[in-house]
Amino acid sequence: MKWYTEQWSDNCKFSIGYNEEIHSEQSPFQKIDFYKSEEFGTFFTLDGLMMVNEKDEFVYHDMITHPAFATNPDIKKVLIIGGGDGGTAREVLRYESVEKVVMVEIDELVFRLSQKYLPITAAGVEEDPRMEMIFDDGLAYVQNAADQSFDLILVDSTDPISVGEGLFTTAFYKECYRVLNEKGILINQHESPYFAEYAENMRKAHKKIKGIFPIASVYQFHMPTYPSGHWLFGFASKALHPIKDIQVDAWDKFGLKTKYYNTDLHVGAFALPTFVKESLDRDE
Amino acid sequence: MKWYTEQWSDNCKFSIGYNEEIHSEQSPFQKIDFYKSEEFGTFFTLDGLMMVNEKDEFVYHDMITHPAFATNPDIKKVLIIGGGDGGTAREVLRYESVEKVVMVEIDELVFRLSQKYLPITAAGVEEDPRMEMIFDDGLAYVQNAADQSFDLILVDSTDPISVGEGLFTTAFYKECYRVLNEKGILINQHESPYFAEYAENMRKAHKKIKGIFPIASVYQFHMPTYPSGHWLFGFASKALHPIKDIQVDAWDKFGLKTKYYNTDLHVGAFALPTFVKESLDRDE
Repeated sequence: MKWYTEQWSDNCKFSIGYNEEIHSEQSPFQKIDFYKSEEFGTFFTLDGLMMVNEKDEFVYHDMITHPAFATNPDIKKVLIIGGGDGGTAREVLRYESVEKVVMVEIDELVFRLSQKYLPITAAGVEEDPRMEMIFDDGLAYVQNAADQSFDLILVDSTDPISVGEGLFTTAFYKECYRVLNEKGILINQHESPYFAEYAENMRKAHKKIKGIFPIASVYQFHMPTYPSGHWLFGFASKALHPIKDIQVDAWDKFGLKTKYYNTDLHVGAFALPTFVKESLDRDE
Repeated sequence: MKWYTEQWSDNCKFSIGYNEEIHSEQSPFQKIDFYKSEEFGTFFTLDGLMMVNEKDEFVYHDMITHPAFATNPDIKKVLIIGGGDGGTAREVLRYESVEKVVMVEIDELVFRLSQKYLPITAAGVEEDPRMEMIFDDGLAYVQNAADQSFDLILVDSTDPISVGEGLFTTAFYKECYRVLNEKGILINQHESPYFAEYAENMRKAHKKIKGIFPIASVYQFHMPTYPSGHWLFGFASKALHPIKDIQVDAWDKFGLKTKYYNTDLHVGAFALPTFVKESLDRDE
């Protein structure tokens, strides 16, 4: 057995035993590595950071997708920025009421390799007639998109380094605001409160988003293969509140079986530990 | 820098860089190692498993202590089983309304070394006039304790191996039931749902406890230095429900500043992911 090791901070690391590296390639944007392991099944990393694995991808993809649909069950037009593994699109496409999904992924190779090696997230996505796949820069896409053209934007990005950097900027969040309609919701990958570097990213993102959207919350979930296992998404919107406006019965009527998400957990996920609330509220 | 490494499963490990090992000793019960690190401050392990560190001990000690007090603010007599680092006693003693705390720790050396190296959890505990410290077996203690003599039992144990094993037995939980009074609450270290070995312990503990207590719930929290970071406590009681009977105003009146716990999070922590609920409900 060989070991894939990720530094979670300068003094902390996480390692996964794998049987074989099944693909390694430098795309124009990043280094992509796919591995096969006993504990986590197939997984891949971008620039040496864990993105998706078969064991806990359901946590991330449930949590990026379903809270928005339980808050607004009428969502019809969805924009996914990033999400190259296909898992976010897979979850969105489970809603038969969704009419249109635009997925803008900068790195086509991530999606093609996921189709080949990670069917659990990528299979069937491209074939769905409601999908429009665009392999281009997400920031450029929203800059050119029409006003109020989406009900929901899901930012399924890497950390704010290299290709993910533009997706953590005020300019990007402002464009998201503009292209969302009056009930629009923005969900974004919001980093983590535990290790200093990630917490800094978390604070910066929240500060920017709450300066633009009238409603800006953060919710948490357990993602064991991400640094510290304590991970966050941002929920920002023009009008709908993730707790006050939750439509439990309407969501239950979708009849979706989920492995992580449920509407009790939805409410619970917005109840943050005191140190996280204080960190988000701190002005710096 | 040297590395302390813990296997989280056969194919997964977690490593902490440390500057020096400050103490290593085999007690009659277990191997005790204290380390000093940049990221986590001072930490110690028992038989090679992370117990307590300065960075996130507040998560564990908040969550083992405060949910019970918010459910029954009249708690006066508390029994702590284990908890040799002193952190659980420290949190309990913050309630001035508490009259008596009995702490039964099998391994006196853990407490003595914590007094020396980990004042953040152990300082001041033994000196509090409400404390009775007993260095003996927890199961034997409850077997000899009088009926209905405690309002709250906190089982702050290791995993169900070596010295912790007896604290995961039906015999032990039955004795806990007997020595709790009619509003009595039992909180126990309830393992984790993610890695198979821990999930098995979680299921077994829940099955035993729900066979004895009319109310038996499980709640979750983010504990990054424990395997998977997804950790659980059990809440069992004779009469009080952790959500329906929560007394938010009464708890707020205690005026305790906490870094992890708050009463919103209390409610949220009982909202478990679907896979955890299903795992707990499974009969096997």
